Amino acid sequence: MEIYQKTTKLLIDVREKSPLVHHITNYVTVNDCANIVLALGGSPVMADDEKEVKEMTSLARALVLNIGTLNTRTIDSMIIAGKTAKERNIPIILDPVGVGATKLRTQTAKQLLAEVNPTIIRGNMSEIKILAGIDGNIKGVDSMDDMQNGKEIALELSHKLNAIVAITGKIDIISNGTNTTFIANGHKLLSQVTGTGCMCSSLVGTYAGVTEDYYSAAIAGILSMGLAGEKSFNSLKDSEGVGTFRMRIFDNIYNLTPEILEGEGKIHEE
Amino acid sequence: MEIYQKTTKLLIDVREKSPLVHHITNYVTVNDCANIVLALGGSPVMADDEKEVKEMTSLARALVLNIGTLNTRTIDSMIIAGKTAKERNIPIILDPVGVGATKLRTQTAKQLLAEVNPTIIRGNMSEIKILAGIDGNIKGVDSMDDMQNGKEIALELSHKLNAIVAITGKIDIISNGTNTTFIANGHKLLSQVTGTGCMCSSLVGTYAGVTEDYYSAAIAGILSMGLAGEKSFNSLKDSEGVGTFRMRIFDNIYNLTPEILEGEGKIHEE
Amino acid sequence: MEIYQKTTKLLIDVREKSPLVHHITNYVTVNDCANIVLALGGSPVMADDEKEVKEMTSLARALVLNIGTLNTRTIDSMIIAGKTAKERNIPIILDPVGVGATKLRTQTAKQLLAEVNPTIIRGNMSEIKILAGIDGNIKGVDSMDDMQNGKEIALELSHKLNAIVAITGKIDIISNGTNTTFIANGHKLLSQVTGTGCMCSSLVGTYAGVTEDYYSAAIAGILSMGLAGEKSFNSLKDSEGVGTFRMRIFDNIYNLTPEILEGEGKIHEE
Repeated sequence: MEIYQKTTKLLIDVREKSPLVHHITNYVTVNDCANIVLALGGSPVMADDEKEVKEMTSLARALVLNIGTLNTRTIDSMIIAGKTAKERNIPIILDPVGVGATKLRTQTAKQLLAEVNPTIIRGNMSEIKILAGIDGNIKGVDSMDDMQNGKEIALELSHKLNAIVAITGKIDIISNGTNTTFIANGHKLLSQVTGTGCMCSSLVGTYAGVTEDYYSAAIAGILSMGLAGEKSFNSLKDSEGVGTFRMRIFDNIYNLTPEILEGEGKIHEE
Repeated sequence: MEIYQKTTKLLIDVREKSPLVHHITNYVTVNDCANIVLALGGSPVMADDEKEVKEMTSLARALVLNIGTLNTRTIDSMIIAGKTAKERNIPIILDPVGVGATKLRTQTAKQLLAEVNPTIIRGNMSEIKILAGIDGNIKGVDSMDDMQNGKEIALELSHKLNAIVAITGKIDIISNGTNTTFIANGHKLLSQVTGTGCMCSSLVGTYAGVTEDYYSAAIAGILSMGLAGEKSFNSLKDSEGVGTFRMRIFDNIYNLTPEILEGEGKIHEE
Repeated sequence: MEIYQKTTKLLIDVREKSPLVHHITNYVTVNDCANIVLALGGSPVMADDEKEVKEMTSLARALVLNIGTLNTRTIDSMIIAGKTAKERNIPIILDPVGVGATKLRTQTAKQLLAEVNPTIIRGNMSEIKILAGIDGNIKGVDSMDDMQNGKEIALELSHKLNAIVAITGKIDIISNGTNTTFIANGHKLLSQVTGTGCMCSSLVGTYAGVTEDYYSAAIAGILSMGLAGEKSFNSLKDSEGVGTFRMRIFDNIYNLTPEILEGEGKIHEE
């Protein structure tokens, strides 16, 4: 089955099954993450107290761990939730926001890699480079690096961690350790709205909640976000800007169809 | 005075008096709750540190307790704030988000019922069933149950807890232990935006801040949300979706008038 | 160089340099603060764990401290971050949300004044009066006071604290202890959207990240917010309200130009 058929099937399944996606995430973009999961057709839940994350994760079909606003309390909860997910074969999506910017983030990301072994890791080039042990220029959490060697890095890290690795940027790169997929959708205005990376991880998590083909789930989530970004930008009038653009991302995820995935997706597989 | 006159009076009073509504709520939808209170004409405040909740509650005309993202720190604050409100006859609105999904939520909800005795409880059918001691199917916090026996459950729980009980769903059911009111407004798209339940509780709290007729305040809040949902949906164009819908909810609460309450409300009293 | 040239230069510099602005802020409006910094052209980061705030602040060009939802954990982080900023000559913007409403807020604000000596303080009249030791009527965090004696209060507090003091309201008053600037832009609807004050402080912080002329940075931030409010209101159609208004604030900050600053700014200097 080729990739467009797979992503189409995943979209239909999300809308039919409405998978519960548990998030332990940052308080900056948590509302956006909940709304994007709902817009796609999933069912989000956000809970982070260590007394309840085990139970909540057990009810879920996917777990998203996002380190955007870490603190000691939520790190412990992430480990508990992650181990629960692992035991129960619930896919774990790690979004290593700002890893490399501080020791706490780098240590926590490494601890999560070691102790819960995420199923899918989605970050920008700088973040993924840090996880791969390559020095990158990190400037807060919005760093932009060149995409050179992206394929090699994704392949190598994927192989090393036994996880799907997704690098989002001008061209998105997704690898399962053997194959690599490039997606040329998206728009640069996505980097001028907070949470578009986090939302992308949540979309990946939602798709991962209806399949065991996590490579396709990662592709579907990133493709969906890219298409929503493009379409949102294209509909902007002169007086509109990032406020309207941001609102339309939710509209466009809600209105996503198999026809759009197939007709407008720009996927290249190697 | 019949119900439309009562809700109309409450709307006018909210806009004139701008009641301060203190929230201890979740970090997922807290911004939406603040904005919906402002849109209606109230004045929201969110504070959750145990060192300040007593003072903040004392300044307020209503207290909204929402257990969406509980943690040990905020549970203690909810108890302190709740007791302060009780002592000063400030109405307490409890939103038992996701109760039944985890032990922590169920225990906390029960503790709040026992120790602070909320004035108004607003939840969906699954949540209210749990509080009433009836097994429901809980799937995260967006569970949907049949509305059967809704009236009996609302009446019984209201009587047992000496509180107004409001069950929101396709048909909303509000009971004061003696009477029951049904509201047929609203739109199913409300369930595809996070925080519409939380916002509904905040609207109820805002109306409760200008009256001692808490039954009418609950009706007014739920009616307002339903009307905003309907009108927001009806104004959507083809390319629009949940993003635009969500924005218009705030527009429509802001533009709510006595004429809309009376002309478009679908209330049935028993 | 006159003030319009200065603000114009600051806008151009923000877009060129994209300063990293570290926030320790409340969870109610944190998403809005991140998005408004991005809309202007800056790069926001939000981190509040005491283990990482020193490093994160060191990477930043400005630090925004906002006491909207204080707790013990974040107070400690604010002190650490503030001291780090001070040592490194990184400007600190203090937004004393709701100071005077509770002892915790008043004590924390005073502690921050004493221990980290903010570069710029932005609040409404009631908040600034509390910091100046003058009794004000505080009603939650949205209090409105008369603007009388505003100039004297701003001048005096600025002189006393050796900080830029900005009082926002119908007429905004900014003082550096010697001079005072009044801005007559803005719209009253800004007070019916949560976070417009917080966002204003974040804009001030973003401008402060590209200059050492903090007086002009404060003026530029407050002018930008006022213009965005005006333009957002003026574009509203009949059926629109605070939801649409709020979205357009981001559009209008994104679309801000030197021509708008100069052509529509209503600045008076004394």
